[in-house]
Amino acid sequence: MASLNSGAAAQVLKNLGANSDWLEATYQQFHAHPELSFQEHASGDVIAAALSTYGFSVQRLGGTGVVGVLVNGDGAVVMSRADMDALPVSEATGLPYASTVPGVMHACGHDVHMTALLGAAKLMAETQGSWSGSFIVVFQPAEEVGGGARALVDDGLTHKVPRPDVVLGQHVMPLPAGMLATAAGPVLSAADSLRITVHGKGSHGSMPHMSVDPVVLAASIVMKLQTIVSRETKPGEFAVVTVGALNAGSTANIIPDRATLLVNIRSYNDTVRTRVLAAIERIVEGECAAAGSPQPADIELYDQFPLTNNDAAATERISEAFAVHFGSEAVTVATPQTASEDFSVLPNAFGAPYSYWFLGGSDPELFVAAQDNDGATPAVPANHSPLFAPVMNPTLSLGVQAHVVAALSYLDGRMPSRSN
Amino acid sequence: MASLNSGAAAQVLKNLGANSDWLEATYQQFHAHPELSFQEHASGDVIAAALSTYGFSVQRLGGTGVVGVLVNGDGAVVMSRADMDALPVSEATGLPYASTVPGVMHACGHDVHMTALLGAAKLMAETQGSWSGSFIVVFQPAEEVGGGARALVDDGLTHKVPRPDVVLGQHVMPLPAGMLATAAGPVLSAADSLRITVHGKGSHGSMPHMSVDPVVLAASIVMKLQTIVSRETKPGEFAVVTVGALNAGSTANIIPDRATLLVNIRSYNDTVRTRVLAAIERIVEGECAAAGSPQPADIELYDQFPLTNNDAAATERISEAFAVHFGSEAVTVATPQTASEDFSVLPNAFGAPYSYWFLGGSDPELFVAAQDNDGATPAVPANHSPLFAPVMNPTLSLGVQAHVVAALSYLDGRMPSRSN
Amino acid sequence: MASLNSGAAAQVLKNLGANSDWLEATYQQFHAHPELSFQEHASGDVIAAALSTYGFSVQRLGGTGVVGVLVNGDGAVVMSRADMDALPVSEATGLPYASTVPGVMHACGHDVHMTALLGAAKLMAETQGSWSGSFIVVFQPAEEVGGGARALVDDGLTHKVPRPDVVLGQHVMPLPAGMLATAAGPVLSAADSLRITVHGKGSHGSMPHMSVDPVVLAASIVMKLQTIVSRETKPGEFAVVTVGALNAGSTANIIPDRATLLVNIRSYNDTVRTRVLAAIERIVEGECAAAGSPQPADIELYDQFPLTNNDAAATERISEAFAVHFGSEAVTVATPQTASEDFSVLPNAFGAPYSYWFLGGSDPELFVAAQDNDGATPAVPANHSPLFAPVMNPTLSLGVQAHVVAALSYLDGRMPSRSN
Amino acid sequence: MASLNSGAAAQVLKNLGANSDWLEATYQQFHAHPELSFQEHASGDVIAAALSTYGFSVQRLGGTGVVGVLVNGDGAVVMSRADMDALPVSEATGLPYASTVPGVMHACGHDVHMTALLGAAKLMAETQGSWSGSFIVVFQPAEEVGGGARALVDDGLTHKVPRPDVVLGQHVMPLPAGMLATAAGPVLSAADSLRITVHGKGSHGSMPHMSVDPVVLAASIVMKLQTIVSRETKPGEFAVVTVGALNAGSTANIIPDRATLLVNIRSYNDTVRTRVLAAIERIVEGECAAAGSPQPADIELYDQFPLTNNDAAATERISEAFAVHFGSEAVTVATPQTASEDFSVLPNAFGAPYSYWFLGGSDPELFVAAQDNDGATPAVPANHSPLFAPVMNPTLSLGVQAHVVAALSYLDGRMPSRSN
Repeated sequence: MASLNSGAAAQVLKNLGANSDWLEATYQQFHAHPELSFQEHASGDVIAAALSTYGFSVQRLGGTGVVGVLVNGDGAVVMSRADMDALPVSEATGLPYASTVPGVMHACGHDVHMTALLGAAKLMAETQGSWSGSFIVVFQPAEEVGGGARALVDDGLTHKVPRPDVVLGQHVMPLPAGMLATAAGPVLSAADSLRITVHGKGSHGSMPHMSVDPVVLAASIVMKLQTIVSRETKPGEFAVVTVGALNAGSTANIIPDRATLLVNIRSYNDTVRTRVLAAIERIVEGECAAAGSPQPADIELYDQFPLTNNDAAATERISEAFAVHFGSEAVTVATPQTASEDFSVLPNAFGAPYSYWFLGGSDPELFVAAQDNDGATPAVPANHSPLFAPVMNPTLSLGVQAHVVAALSYLDGRMPSRSN
Repeated sequence: MASLNSGAAAQVLKNLGANSDWLEATYQQFHAHPELSFQEHASGDVIAAALSTYGFSVQRLGGTGVVGVLVNGDGAVVMSRADMDALPVSEATGLPYASTVPGVMHACGHDVHMTALLGAAKLMAETQGSWSGSFIVVFQPAEEVGGGARALVDDGLTHKVPRPDVVLGQHVMPLPAGMLATAAGPVLSAADSLRITVHGKGSHGSMPHMSVDPVVLAASIVMKLQTIVSRETKPGEFAVVTVGALNAGSTANIIPDRATLLVNIRSYNDTVRTRVLAAIERIVEGECAAAGSPQPADIELYDQFPLTNNDAAATERISEAFAVHFGSEAVTVATPQTASEDFSVLPNAFGAPYSYWFLGGSDPELFVAAQDNDGATPAVPANHSPLFAPVMNPTLSLGVQAHVVAALSYLDGRMPSRSN
Repeated sequence: MASLNSGAAAQVLKNLGANSDWLEATYQQFHAHPELSFQEHASGDVIAAALSTYGFSVQRLGGTGVVGVLVNGDGAVVMSRADMDALPVSEATGLPYASTVPGVMHACGHDVHMTALLGAAKLMAETQGSWSGSFIVVFQPAEEVGGGARALVDDGLTHKVPRPDVVLGQHVMPLPAGMLATAAGPVLSAADSLRITVHGKGSHGSMPHMSVDPVVLAASIVMKLQTIVSRETKPGEFAVVTVGALNAGSTANIIPDRATLLVNIRSYNDTVRTRVLAAIERIVEGECAAAGSPQPADIELYDQFPLTNNDAAATERISEAFAVHFGSEAVTVATPQTASEDFSVLPNAFGAPYSYWFLGGSDPELFVAAQDNDGATPAVPANHSPLFAPVMNPTLSLGVQAHVVAALSYLDGRMPSRSN
Repeated sequence: MASLNSGAAAQVLKNLGANSDWLEATYQQFHAHPELSFQEHASGDVIAAALSTYGFSVQRLGGTGVVGVLVNGDGAVVMSRADMDALPVSEATGLPYASTVPGVMHACGHDVHMTALLGAAKLMAETQGSWSGSFIVVFQPAEEVGGGARALVDDGLTHKVPRPDVVLGQHVMPLPAGMLATAAGPVLSAADSLRITVHGKGSHGSMPHMSVDPVVLAASIVMKLQTIVSRETKPGEFAVVTVGALNAGSTANIIPDRATLLVNIRSYNDTVRTRVLAAIERIVEGECAAAGSPQPADIELYDQFPLTNNDAAATERISEAFAVHFGSEAVTVATPQTASEDFSVLPNAFGAPYSYWFLGGSDPELFVAAQDNDGATPAVPANHSPLFAPVMNPTLSLGVQAHVVAALSYLDGRMPSRSN
């Protein structure tokens, strides 16, 4: 089967080299014109026009999202996804193709994702004689704020395209360019955000006895929340409880009447997630009672990223195809990341298996230098840094190849009638 | 001596009744047109024009302040002060003469103070045959933000008027209208505000190990600051440490790189004040060290109100004059207040003794009703409340009389040429 | 009236000088043979025998207590009290008459109290022609642990002696010997002790997730208890919340299943006391809820000292008598102390007014030297110090005189039949 | 090679069945007569006598330890270790062979370990024709308190026996009897204990301002220590910081002058361990500074267990031998435990590789019932429980077999001259 796959991949990718200028130009265009979440209008227009040219049937979904479907005979249905949005970061790379939008930057590599998937779509469309099945490409808005995949589903994605047999995605990371990393099981954490408002009783700053001080209440909650990870979580089990924001009052001599905490939690399984959420609620209630708070805290769960939990069979199939194509030394086992993604909202909406891998983007020489350090402070600029700058070569090429090889590990295997 | 004093007071005040309409109109005008700190332009214009008419030599100092000097023969020099600024409070009294300026209100009674001192100036000027000496009236801007008295001094007050033998001030309070309260020694606390910025190291919310979390650091500081009053201050000694504001971060999933605390302290003597300030610094430094903060905290002392510490001899003299004039049942011993004033900046600049008293402004019937409660929640709207509304009668009249009687307790006693 | 009083006092005290050797010997005997609370057997025997000799009718009450009644005609009934117990302190004074009992010392001056009251009883008994009324002396056990006065009452004191018109007591303090201090109103705080046991769930130290950690729970309670004084008590109002002991666990690698806190509170009025106790309960309950404690905390109020709140009329009468007898320069106004006494249990049991004063016991020269310091660290050894050593002269003499003069301020004033 | 191994194992174990009564009797004797750490005199005597009988050369080392060496021709040197000490636990099993020593119990299964290794020694000695090499058995005292392995090394172990090629150990656990579990890499955590004494300044409970309160200081340290795991440790990385004991003061109304914390930490690698220890020191120092502590804290590292980190090659070799002998369904992958052992002190002293496995001891039916629960509260009594009671059959037999099979995976494989 590997030989079948390799053969198809070779066919599909035979013009990759000829497209390398196109790939770099496309990438630089995306990078120079970043768009914030749900504002990916220009990017979407570029992508939709290109896909139409390639022969995909194109739909605009979820506001700025673009979905292209290429039905090419019988066989498996593969859905591949790229995210599109940039971040509110001021670029500091000094690159010639740096962001032209002040305060906005493709600092998380979604420009790489769009370019690679568009390149894969182009090559797949140009070589339809080499494979059979359906190839669906999804360009998703607003991954950074967690609502883009949901927006596609809410806009009817599951009714508007064929049900995929597998859903695929990739993310550029501070691995050496030329490397891929993947693993079965959980690779990205689930995330939830909570807005907690605790109520005190305001007073003049000189009259604390007339107040219920919400600043002290909030401080005590912050200290007590630490115990969820330190005491209530099994040692070695993944759980994060971060109070990312605590805001109360605006002047020294007035005791305010409330404090607001924004809390972010991360987990790798539902048991932990449920337990952490219950512990937060229990602690907030107990602390409010201890403080004599005059009314219950408002606790709002306002933002959620699901767990990214790679299907074992799909991931094994794809890993083997990667090893055959790239050589086993180029494919490593991914360690679970603390970060989160909304990618899995898409396969979960279809009830489809999925696999998500990491694409190396760092200059390998820089990466070696960084590894010589203690590992605590990476010298390679990581995602979200104003200095984040994947090297174009071979990152873009590998991104295209990875999409093609992974898709063909499904599409190719279902072509019983072809002779090879 | 009391008879001398009484005689002069009776002379000066003989036309007070005839001025009652003028008093109410003046008060209503000030109340309807409140001006924020250092913006008391219209109020200052009204006052300066009136004082000129009465015969005072008038100077505009400290931006919007007004100083009037009336030299009337030999004798003592008395300086009487009123503050002028309103508060950023939306009036909710429903009074016919309520504030016409949205979001601004004379919620602390400085309109009473201006009216009463202007009335006293008018009567004193009209009866110069009845007393001898110099009467200086100071209408001070910006008491609420603590900089107004300092602005007058910085603008040369001490060089531009005669050195006073005593400086006098009053404040309307939720005492029954018709009552005065005064006491020797400390009557208002000293206040200091600090802006404390502690530094952490920002990170993604899912990577606390890459951060130094300033939210936890700030919370720990808040908890530890409580011990300054609870453990380090002698039981029964007055000290307040309020964290009026704590602000860090703006989103759940980013660990910010700093947190800012606005801290307000109150004290009744320098030993306590010095000790509290040192303890805050010690705690902040220690907590930053415990947290592994990458750089020292920034601690800025940005606002200061001095202690208001009534001179014993001056206060005894004035209290006796009050008791003779108003009857001893109308004069009570003031209990030290938790609040603060910048009044004493003026006498301290001259090295002069001073006395400051409280003027009842609450409807006596409401006040009795409030006293029937447990005392913890006063039914009488207090200063800074959107419902604060001193009754005009007899508050304005008493405010004028108190200024006149207090001033004459000095001016009259130094009239060697009069026969008795 | 002062002259009557002075006359009687002079009569009663005329043999004081002749008794000075007796006083010193009695004191040294008590000092050398200290007895712990409720074990004052030998002291009680000495006192009971002496009182019988003087003509008092003697009862042993409350275990080791001694009550003597001397009815001497019509007139007021005065009860004077001394406490008897020593402390578990190892004496370090090096005095020739130092404690002969290892680890036990009269480090709080109760030996002075016994000697002075016994001396007063002796002189009063020897001069019964000079006064009229009833003189009751109460030698109370176990003041240090707070149960001695209660033991007398529980043993029927109020049914076994005439109801006093006033109850009197004194305490030697680090004032210069030769001085007395007294004040109307509260002079010693009320004290309550609480034993709080919070329940967790024990576990191996490596398995915090299987535990509810009572050490963290107790620590959080300690931090939160600070807010009762720092935030819930009016600035300047006396309140103390001390966690004197916190004990949990005995080995590093076992998470214990409970923690015990011993908490001591001090207050100067019932409103504060009630509020503080309620706040402790609220905080403990809230913190237990926040921690997920499996069962409610046990809170036991196990030790209580009432407020010592001097009757205004009684204290004025006694102060005046002191001023006449000792000179007004020897009598100062007492500042309220943070410490507590169970003295007032006795007058409260009778519903009688009471007055309690402080007797100087420090070498005046040492005291002056100490005052030169910053006041924070008294160079004069204070009560409970292993170095506490009141100077015998004039402390003992003044202690006798104070009891006589104070008693006669009541007894003398009610002798209508005497001619003066 | 597996066949060689299997053949030798079959030979060595052929009389295992015939020894089953002896095994049970030996086990019951150890169980009924438990001895605390470093007091394993009777156990050591029994073992030493038996080993001598079997032909081992026997040494008593480390106080109560017993080391037996059996040199049987050329080949590998295998050292197998069992620990000997019981716990201060009152047995509650009700077994007929329950502990006869009040308050002492073999609650951790070291009786199983001794019996199984003694059985293996007996069988190996009786079948010397079937294998070649050297077999060293180490019966180690005092594992529970962490000093026993060190005591053997300090007593010269490395100079008194041949250097082993591998060191082997096992521990009975709440797995179903009949099962074994092993894994390469870390299987038991490193543990360190610290005794931290923080210094305050004592005072009367009513005078907190004269004190530096060590109770509040210790409480603040406990709260801050939580952040080491919650904020400073990478999510999902194993680290435990437990304050197992906090003791300060003994009475409510005295502020003590010190507090003592006993802290236990667990880690799975040296980087984490070093970082945690440094963080504890940093936090304690910072908190002492924040509190104004008058002298540095005393921090004593008083107890240490090394990481148990199985050699990959040795563990693979042994696992394969187990799978061949017991069937692969009986051998599972061990999950790293939170607990610790001092076993690895022995191989580390020699610089030898080692492997340590877990032996199932629970009644399989009970175990299934327990698994039906939520997993949080095991129904099977775990090690250190007063109800801990491994089933004798097949636990003892498997314990013997595991030692024989593991040893022979080395001894047999190095017999090039033998024909099979």
